[in-house]
Amino acid sequence: MKAVDSYLDQHRDRFVRELCDYLRFPSVSAQPEHAPDMRACAGWLVDHCTRLGLEAELCPTAGNPIVLVRTPRQPGSKKPHFVVYGHYDVQPPDPLDLWVSPPFEPRVEGDALFARGSADNKGQHMAHINAVEAHLRTGTELPCDLTFLIEGEEEVGCTNLTPFLRKRRRELKCEAMVISDTGMPSPRHPALTYALRGIAAVEVIVHGPDRDLHSGIFGGSVDNPAMVLCQVLAQLRDRKGRITVPGFYDDVVKLSAYERKQMARLPFKESSERKFLGVPGMFGESGFTFVERRSARPTCEINGLTSGYQGAGSKTIIPSWARAKLTFRLVPDQDPATIARLVKAHLKDLCPPTVRLEVNAGHGGSPYLIDPTGPLAQASMRALKSAFECEPVLLREGGSIPIVNDFKRILGVDSLLLGLALPNANAHSPNEQFSLSIFQKGMRMSARLWPELVQAVERGKRPA
Amino acid sequence: MKAVDSYLDQHRDRFVRELCDYLRFPSVSAQPEHAPDMRACAGWLVDHCTRLGLEAELCPTAGNPIVLVRTPRQPGSKKPHFVVYGHYDVQPPDPLDLWVSPPFEPRVEGDALFARGSADNKGQHMAHINAVEAHLRTGTELPCDLTFLIEGEEEVGCTNLTPFLRKRRRELKCEAMVISDTGMPSPRHPALTYALRGIAAVEVIVHGPDRDLHSGIFGGSVDNPAMVLCQVLAQLRDRKGRITVPGFYDDVVKLSAYERKQMARLPFKESSERKFLGVPGMFGESGFTFVERRSARPTCEINGLTSGYQGAGSKTIIPSWARAKLTFRLVPDQDPATIARLVKAHLKDLCPPTVRLEVNAGHGGSPYLIDPTGPLAQASMRALKSAFECEPVLLREGGSIPIVNDFKRILGVDSLLLGLALPNANAHSPNEQFSLSIFQKGMRMSARLWPELVQAVERGKRPA
Repeated sequence: MKAVDSYLDQHRDRFVRELCDYLRFPSVSAQPEHAPDMRACAGWLVDHCTRLGLEAELCPTAGNPIVLVRTPRQPGSKKPHFVVYGHYDVQPPDPLDLWVSPPFEPRVEGDALFARGSADNKGQHMAHINAVEAHLRTGTELPCDLTFLIEGEEEVGCTNLTPFLRKRRRELKCEAMVISDTGMPSPRHPALTYALRGIAAVEVIVHGPDRDLHSGIFGGSVDNPAMVLCQVLAQLRDRKGRITVPGFYDDVVKLSAYERKQMARLPFKESSERKFLGVPGMFGESGFTFVERRSARPTCEINGLTSGYQGAGSKTIIPSWARAKLTFRLVPDQDPATIARLVKAHLKDLCPPTVRLEVNAGHGGSPYLIDPTGPLAQASMRALKSAFECEPVLLREGGSIPIVNDFKRILGVDSLLLGLALPNANAHSPNEQFSLSIFQKGMRMSARLWPELVQAVERGKRPA
Repeated sequence: MKAVDSYLDQHRDRFVRELCDYLRFPSVSAQPEHAPDMRACAGWLVDHCTRLGLEAELCPTAGNPIVLVRTPRQPGSKKPHFVVYGHYDVQPPDPLDLWVSPPFEPRVEGDALFARGSADNKGQHMAHINAVEAHLRTGTELPCDLTFLIEGEEEVGCTNLTPFLRKRRRELKCEAMVISDTGMPSPRHPALTYALRGIAAVEVIVHGPDRDLHSGIFGGSVDNPAMVLCQVLAQLRDRKGRITVPGFYDDVVKLSAYERKQMARLPFKESSERKFLGVPGMFGESGFTFVERRSARPTCEINGLTSGYQGAGSKTIIPSWARAKLTFRLVPDQDPATIARLVKAHLKDLCPPTVRLEVNAGHGGSPYLIDPTGPLAQASMRALKSAFECEPVLLREGGSIPIVNDFKRILGVDSLLLGLALPNANAHSPNEQFSLSIFQKGMRMSARLWPELVQAVERGKRPA
């Protein structure tokens, strides 16, 4: 490990330069005009890995190519196999005028490397690739076989990843996925994310009169779809932050004492959060801390409202219809389809007979949870502790990462989420940045992770 | 009266032809490119009235000219004076493709004259002018002096009418205004509209976080402005259709038994209304009939809702803000400023401390009411009955006509609203039409109105 650590330290500046080369590709998957940049970026990654002595393959898909990289392995290798997932595509950089320096001209300022894709996700998966390089160049044998699966459509819904996983399932068979694409609360709080919330999207439309009506002529004698929408939606959540849909909480797995204790260790303060968000007060489900509310409890959010006249001044109409877009964040073991069904039934119950209610279930994603006390989770915690030289934390993340459900469903494996983005990373925002010291510690963590994981796997296989 | 009636009958076809000439001017006040048409149209009216032997004046304003027409009168005339109000401007004809024939090429089909402005309002005030012509040409003395005040900005807010009324107040001093610019429920239900609703507009904005937030990362720990807006607005009106703002009904004048009896006579059926509006069911304040609800009771309407994401699919955000546009229709003696104040106070009471509430009062208009049993109202009813040969009805109109408040405030007089538009008139819509038989009866009504009104005025002046 010492040789690997020294190599990582010695080549620190070159790693930054190479990352900068990678970041110069405007690999914006959402914008069709960047299709050539996508291919060039994937090509750069293949060339880079090939130069390191890795077996790198550019795999075409119906969309952007997937890069598959294998560490050298013996034929019929019996070593445990892990797959590292990452993505080379990035979010659009807009609005450009808010960037201090151009998004695709990487700039180092102190410990920060500013560029679109630096934290999300090029910097994070390069830390793992650099750690492999250190093994190869120092002649340190990896205790496992590794495959890197770096796709180019993460920011646009991973459309072509699922069929690819199905097609290459045998080759991707592994002990676990390792993904560094999440966050850590502070440089002193390296983290394993062991749970993600799921999601259920529902669109609600209240249909009233078949056209907008003059509120003077008809007002008072016909129901107002916007008012009905408000009255129905108002009843989805009480003022204690509790969702009132019957059956909504039925499948929620109770937080364990261990989890609540771990969450209490997180360095988040409600008062600074209030200031950061610019709200007069925080709000949430009573009986839970602010951290639990946003990561380990389900929610009901109105994402958008549309009805009638929205311009300047006023227009005296009874609008013909009113629409709300809702999403529910879900926690284990809530099922998106079940939740959408319960919500629909409740809304139908609440709706008066004076209007017609339309409820459309939108996309859904299952919540995700691995046992934080399980052997692979605890092995990851040890690697984090050793590399960062401080006690790591266990995180539940409030958002969703749909692909981890695909990995579970198609490959049958858990994902270890070892994110390296700090809260100020500005992923998806202007002035995205990645901490260079975290980059370096991430490489050390990666080097320590493989022996820990292999040990845990082998211990698990030993007859009891 | 016989001579006048015969004249009106004999010249029926010519009256239609002349109205068609008047309707050919695309006098669309809302569209600046029609400014020359406005002047040409006003000029036509001045010429037409001058040819009849009336004293017609084109009065320039800061906007479109006002046409003032006087019946011939003796110097120092002691006759009662009435002012007939009308407007020569029309609504924009759009959408043009929904018109069966071009809006400014009048077309007669059976009893209907199709053209923009036919009912609203050229046909209606021409009925009064034609009745005056019949008096002049048959040598029948009018029992009163008449002034026609025909403006060109009714459809764009009557901006220049108020200063004009102030400037010409002495000359416009009269017993009452007579306005044919409202509706009648059916050809067998000529109507005097004796009350109008007022209005108070209020805009409500709920401010939450200072930017849209990721609902995965923050959802559950911060209040949702769209949800708060719904919860606050939902409490403005209960499911019995009663507005829950404290003090809201305090100044409402109770409907008299006479009024309720008159309203019950109106030929409106809830079931056919339901079909006409395309709603699954009607709705309104319990304890009142459908006709009372839409004309004689105050309302709270949401005219528009705006918040967060409104495009296709979904965007998983907690919106930074949510806005509603509200209007309250008011009845005598509710005051728009008082109502806006009560609503604001109630909303502030309802709003939780987790968001910031902004409430902006918009435009307001007072409700209007004349005593339907008063001498001028009853005189109008007699004229309607004689001309239409059936029992007239008393109407409250649910909308507002701001100018009647100006006439009251500036000239100190009531307005007698004797509308000639049938429910199928399509005022403000494509295929506007005016019934030619109602046009004819309107002329007869006008001829009978003046002696009835004069008699009522003189009876009132007689020492008791």
